[in-house]
Amino acid sequence: VEKQKEVIGSLVTIGDELLLGDIPNGNAHYIASTLRSAGFRLRRMTTVGDVEEEIIETLVRHLDQSDFLIGTGGLGPTEDDRTLGAVSKGFDVPLVPNADYRSWLEKYMAERGRAWSDEAEKMTMLPDGAAKLGVGMAGFSIVLRGKPCYFLPGVPHEMRILMDEWVLPDLKRRFPYRPVYVKIILRVQGLPESEIGKRLKELASEESGVGIGYLPQTGENWVSLFAAGESEGDAKGRLQSVMERVISRLGSEVISGQNEEGLERVIGRQLREKGWKLAAAESCTGGLLSRRITAIAGASDYFDRAFVTYSNQAKMELLGVSEAMLRAHGAVSEAVAKAMAAGARARAGVDVAVAITGIAGPSGGSPQKPVGTVFIGCESPLASVVERYFFTGDREWIQEKAAQAALVLLWRILGKK
Amino acid sequence: VEKQKEVIGSLVTIGDELLLGDIPNGNAHYIASTLRSAGFRLRRMTTVGDVEEEIIETLVRHLDQSDFLIGTGGLGPTEDDRTLGAVSKGFDVPLVPNADYRSWLEKYMAERGRAWSDEAEKMTMLPDGAAKLGVGMAGFSIVLRGKPCYFLPGVPHEMRILMDEWVLPDLKRRFPYRPVYVKIILRVQGLPESEIGKRLKELASEESGVGIGYLPQTGENWVSLFAAGESEGDAKGRLQSVMERVISRLGSEVISGQNEEGLERVIGRQLREKGWKLAAAESCTGGLLSRRITAIAGASDYFDRAFVTYSNQAKMELLGVSEAMLRAHGAVSEAVAKAMAAGARARAGVDVAVAITGIAGPSGGSPQKPVGTVFIGCESPLASVVERYFFTGDREWIQEKAAQAALVLLWRILGKK
Repeated sequence: VEKQKEVIGSLVTIGDELLLGDIPNGNAHYIASTLRSAGFRLRRMTTVGDVEEEIIETLVRHLDQSDFLIGTGGLGPTEDDRTLGAVSKGFDVPLVPNADYRSWLEKYMAERGRAWSDEAEKMTMLPDGAAKLGVGMAGFSIVLRGKPCYFLPGVPHEMRILMDEWVLPDLKRRFPYRPVYVKIILRVQGLPESEIGKRLKELASEESGVGIGYLPQTGENWVSLFAAGESEGDAKGRLQSVMERVISRLGSEVISGQNEEGLERVIGRQLREKGWKLAAAESCTGGLLSRRITAIAGASDYFDRAFVTYSNQAKMELLGVSEAMLRAHGAVSEAVAKAMAAGARARAGVDVAVAITGIAGPSGGSPQKPVGTVFIGCESPLASVVERYFFTGDREWIQEKAAQAALVLLWRILGKK
Repeated sequence: VEKQKEVIGSLVTIGDELLLGDIPNGNAHYIASTLRSAGFRLRRMTTVGDVEEEIIETLVRHLDQSDFLIGTGGLGPTEDDRTLGAVSKGFDVPLVPNADYRSWLEKYMAERGRAWSDEAEKMTMLPDGAAKLGVGMAGFSIVLRGKPCYFLPGVPHEMRILMDEWVLPDLKRRFPYRPVYVKIILRVQGLPESEIGKRLKELASEESGVGIGYLPQTGENWVSLFAAGESEGDAKGRLQSVMERVISRLGSEVISGQNEEGLERVIGRQLREKGWKLAAAESCTGGLLSRRITAIAGASDYFDRAFVTYSNQAKMELLGVSEAMLRAHGAVSEAVAKAMAAGARARAGVDVAVAITGIAGPSGGSPQKPVGTVFIGCESPLASVVERYFFTGDREWIQEKAAQAALVLLWRILGKK
């Protein structure tokens, strides 16, 4: 049996827009985490601009130090797309037309009544020996200096499809003997990072071979556990034993889920188990809570509707909040949050309703109710609750934190026995 | 007068958590855009792990190719913080205790009842000749090989303070004669990237000194124009003249806004100008459209409410869509999109209403109406429209594209004379 060894790649992200700070490099984040989950590591990630010599130098040097290479960006039809030329010159491979892709593109453009062009012609050229990846988008793989290289479009959605469906399967086939990396993220609610760090300090400094990391998120904290092993059983076993100790030190009641299991997913499971339906009433979050809930496939099983009652008129008409109450307490108040939740529950005819009303700013604050004041109400067979929060930050940050707090409140209430 | 020349730096971000994809590299984005606005450029950004030799090699090579260097991360007190050692070894500078920082840290820890430790001792060491940056956090500057270098903590909040208050002022002082950079992003609707590239091809290859870039986004394309000049007037003048030619080649009617001016902002302005109110009815997008509209401060001036009618029951009760129509056409149909928009407009008593109904998937598709089928209706004094779309991609991507298409439709209709 071939001996296991670490398989270590390099990532080169190409584009002036990254160097100029126009957009964050989300692709690098996705590629790094996807590779890691499949047992591959990156030695280095480098961003270069749309300059052929820079791209060539970076590709050549990174490939020499790696088992494989992934490049993103610079594959489009326009003048500032330099990746094809760089691969061709840097590794001395001529560009040749790709017949399959050409016929696909001809058909695609003809169907849309678009004339063939130099740009289209450029899109059909690939380095000699390259294999096209995917359909209807740029991207190819090629073996250079004996090592697999993958060049993906910079468009995040297309890059992701090609990573998941082409790059990872190919890498797995080429490098079957690699260590297993196991990683678990515990999502912690209601404990500050410093308190988590204090409780886990001794565990973190032990030589367990399990790495413990702290990643603060919006309104929740993540604790990451990471182990490498010769087999999944080995790595998982060690990770499991550290995880149990982490959970016992933090308290299982503060952990809402693991890995991708965000609160919107956990709440969906809780509602499904109870056979309950949910409705939301949102003011300052303007649909954000509802959007998070409905981002989960199958949400229609338990989510009925949301009333985004931005105006007072809407709060009265859709939720039955009285004008007298709005006048006496103001739209951002405990009474109105409660009335919104009760109105949503009754009018939608659901089991549980959650309501958010607050001041996201930048204007609208007062000394008594500063920007960031948010009331969250929840009406359910288990509890009738209104909570008051003071969030800091800009408008979007306050909206995000308010939606998160509503999910935390729902999760707590639905978890009651 | 000293002649102006471009000042070009390199950025090295250090940390296993970046290479493993645990967190996105937000620091790189912030540093790149901050530098650019102040007239500095980056040649390259590289991320390396917590491995001393890797850090040394990367720092040395990047510094040789740059006028200045910024490093982030690896400055903490723990074992995996390797930046200090790498600077010391890589550039042959001994580490010496920093008296000022030591006395500050002693006082800080004593006040908190914490005993002096090896970790604290490590924190007070700096390369010989370095200057401490900031108070109460890691970070220093040092001239290496005649070039200014700045090493900042990886904690985003601390990094930002040091960038704004120390690094930028120091760079400006050291490089007073640098060009002015001006950048404008044009947001283009309804033209594919290849068509944009074709129309701008000649402009892009002219020696105007204005760089033209293409950035495809979700449902829209961005054209970026970038100019460097000796003065703001010079750079802006050249950029302006190229921009006018870009706009005339693309057609002013396809350009919805510039820079941060997303469609949700433009629509807000259009509605405000007309003194109109807007309501939304959303099914498959579950509140996303409403969330985008209400992310803009002041949206309450023109946005009244949204009906997130996820269930058929909600469509009937809140929007007056008839059961017969739902049975005859299905919830995802031209008729229902039109009825939802008309219902939202009438029930909210607003001037304009937009409605989205579709199949975001992954389930719920059929041969006649595959996943990705979306109908968008708009009712207004200017037009009554329903459009049908077929989007590809996963659930979230389809939802994003549908919300974007609704904003494009609104923008078109509100722009009618």
